[in-house]
Amino acid sequence: MNPHTPLKIALIQMACGADTGANLAAALTRVEDAARRGARVVCLPELFRSPYFCQREDPALFELAEPVPGPSTDALSRVAGRHNVVILVPVFERRAAGIYHNSLAVLDGDGKMAGLYRKMHVPDDPAYYEKFYFTPGDTGFQAIQTRAGNIGALICWDQWYPEAARLTALQGAEMLFYPTAIGWHPSEKSRDGATQRRAWQIMHHSHAIANGVFVAAVNRVGHEPSAGGEGLEFWGSSFICDPFGEVLAEASVDKEETVFADVDLGRVEEVRRHWPFLRDRRVDAYGGITRRFLDGGDRGAC
Amino acid sequence: MNPHTPLKIALIQMACGADTGANLAAALTRVEDAARRGARVVCLPELFRSPYFCQREDPALFELAEPVPGPSTDALSRVAGRHNVVILVPVFERRAAGIYHNSLAVLDGDGKMAGLYRKMHVPDDPAYYEKFYFTPGDTGFQAIQTRAGNIGALICWDQWYPEAARLTALQGAEMLFYPTAIGWHPSEKSRDGATQRRAWQIMHHSHAIANGVFVAAVNRVGHEPSAGGEGLEFWGSSFICDPFGEVLAEASVDKEETVFADVDLGRVEEVRRHWPFLRDRRVDAYGGITRRFLDGGDRGAC
Repeated sequence: MNPHTPLKIALIQMACGADTGANLAAALTRVEDAARRGARVVCLPELFRSPYFCQREDPALFELAEPVPGPSTDALSRVAGRHNVVILVPVFERRAAGIYHNSLAVLDGDGKMAGLYRKMHVPDDPAYYEKFYFTPGDTGFQAIQTRAGNIGALICWDQWYPEAARLTALQGAEMLFYPTAIGWHPSEKSRDGATQRRAWQIMHHSHAIANGVFVAAVNRVGHEPSAGGEGLEFWGSSFICDPFGEVLAEASVDKEETVFADVDLGRVEEVRRHWPFLRDRRVDAYGGITRRFLDGGDRGAC
Repeated sequence: MNPHTPLKIALIQMACGADTGANLAAALTRVEDAARRGARVVCLPELFRSPYFCQREDPALFELAEPVPGPSTDALSRVAGRHNVVILVPVFERRAAGIYHNSLAVLDGDGKMAGLYRKMHVPDDPAYYEKFYFTPGDTGFQAIQTRAGNIGALICWDQWYPEAARLTALQGAEMLFYPTAIGWHPSEKSRDGATQRRAWQIMHHSHAIANGVFVAAVNRVGHEPSAGGEGLEFWGSSFICDPFGEVLAEASVDKEETVFADVDLGRVEEVRRHWPFLRDRRVDAYGGITRRFLDGGDRGAC
């Protein structure tokens, strides 16, 4: 593909209800609609088939998991092949009895699976009890070549880790996608809500700038209650930014919508020629990154 | 020190003229004034003793270099000891014949040198011909314990590298300081100026968020001409932000001024307890960071 041909990207910001079949049906309809409107890459939000079940720890909820390939990827593969569209499909993956992952399947435009990423950074925060459900990924970081460009597959909590963005970009990814389920604790929203959302935006923009890539985050919307708790209000705000960190398109905080943007993948090389950050990395001095903490005093001296 | 005692930080945003003696005299006056007003840590801008000479490549300009310790650090050490103030002193360092560095000396409150950092990431861009002058640093990244907290010493171009911030924070730095000389090519300012400055701010804010530390950038101001060129307009905007990336104080784009902020170093632990990013780093999968590019396909699988 000519790198200067605009590539239409679509981000499906949606609410996810208790009926997993209805969530899949809604996703299929919206992905198909986006493809008909010219999208070549479409991304769904993290764990879109169900409410964000990690608000509590309940072994019964492992029933929500499915294999990959499995029902969700099969259904979306048919759409991918029919419309020649690349689809990023988050799945609560059952890999084996006792091994479940928060995963992201990348389906190519021929309907085949181009790659699979399993969330590497798994959070555990009040109402985000993911360490109970998800075995940490062992795929490493994944830049996946597709008919519509080289796609970096990442998921939510990965957004806080510059290492994840870097390792994905260093494999050749031109666009990083972060399907996401992030929101406010309602009681914190008035005091800290704006700061929290801004920090989340900044991290994504910084990955774009540091690596000279496009970055997209795709979040869900809506308040999801929890038994005995205040629930979570997912803040939407799905967006895509260019390699300078400039936002090209952004969704509301509270409405289901599909965000479209035309991206020129030629910008990746153009921006990196003007801001040649990759040229000057001190790879001789970065060894300490693989350590938990440098209380031993390793300064990467060289 | 009680971590909840506010610590006053001062950032000296200044213009740097052709008279190196006058630049030092101005710096001494302003650092002393900041100390009298209660500052416990004061930071000067990158290469403050001279105009930004890297706009051209001229062997005669190595005459601007001086040893460390040397005239600049000696003069500022006296101020540090007299006022019990930590001072960050950028120096064009002559280390040996043919080995010059873009360095940052950290002087402790007793006037002694607490540590020395030599710029690890050295740029080379039109009008920023630093690779001609500066040998890449071999100090590694430096978190320097002082009477006023653990200080991360970094310089300008390092700001674009999440690895630098991370490796400094992992040594225990509570505050990252980036003395800087960054500005606009006047002919680009109207089209790209806002985007460039915003990208620079975002990177700093992201280091604060990703690492749960305070971050300060200290820039010069003013237009500095170049023979045969349009010169550079340094954009000031010196600022300090908290571990959520929220700006506490920020200077103008064009005026000499001293920016003060009271920081509570206890916020570092408090923020990291709420946003426990350091806990979940996948150190088992970060080995590829020490590679130039992962065209060999290393995905950090584990």
